[in-house]
Amino acid sequence: MSTKDVFCPVEVTLDAIAGRWKVLIIHQLLEGTKRFNQLQRELGGITHRTLTKQLRELEGWGLIARKDYREIPPRVEYRLSALGQSLEGVLLAMHAWGESYGQKAFPKKGQEP
Amino acid sequence: MSTKDVFCPVEVTLDAIAGRWKVLIIHQLLEGTKRFNQLQRELGGITHRTLTKQLRELEGWGLIARKDYREIPPRVEYRLSALGQSLEGVLLAMHAWGESYGQKAFPKKGQEP
Repeated sequence: MSTKDVFCPVEVTLDAIAGRWKVLIIHQLLEGTKRFNQLQRELGGITHRTLTKQLRELEGWGLIARKDYREIPPRVEYRLSALGQSLEGVLLAMHAWGESYGQKAFPKKGQEP
Repeated sequence: MSTKDVFCPVEVTLDAIAGRWKVLIIHQLLEGTKRFNQLQRELGGITHRTLTKQLRELEGWGLIARKDYREIPPRVEYRLSALGQSLEGVLLAMHAWGESYGQKAFPKKGQEP
C-alpha cells in the first residue's frame, strides 16, 4: 500500500486528515490562530520535532498558513488556510459521532496500523 | 505511538474509520447488504486475505454484521450495524469535502505513514 489510486472523494479526505496529530492540529486551529508553543502545550505529548514535521506537511498541503514575525524571541503563528477551514464540517461530523457513539463503542481501542 | 490516550471525540471517529480499506468498506455497505465477492470486486485490488481481516475487525468493533447462510457454495453477506450506519453523516461530509476541495488540492498525494 505504498502507492495507491484514489478510489473516491472519501478517501481523498481521509488522506488529508489521516494521522493522530494532523486531525488534532486542524481541530485546535479551528479555534483560531495559535503559536507553536501553544499548540505544543495543547497537544500534550507531542514532541517539538514531531509538531514541526506535522506543521510543515500541513503547510505543504495548503491546509495551514505559517507567519513568522521575525522577532526575538521567535514568534511564529499558525492558522488554517481557507482550504483547512473548509474541513470544519468534516471535523464537526467526526466530533458529533465520536461523542454520540464512538466513545461508548471504543472506550479504549488501540491504534490502527 | 503504539499506545495512546484519547484526546477528543474526533480522534475516536478517526480510529473507527482509519485505514484505506475500512472507510471504503463502510462506504460500500452504505449502499446496502453485500456478499464477500461483491465487496472484493468493488474494492478492486484488495486481496481475499486483507478483505477477510478488515471485515473481521469491523465486525469485532460492532460496525458491521455478518450473516452466513450456511449454503454450498458459501453465501455470506455483510451489512452495516446500526452503529456502522450512524457513520453515514461523517462519510457524507468526507465525500462532500473530497469532491469540492480535496481532489483539486491533492490530485495524487501519496499514502501517509
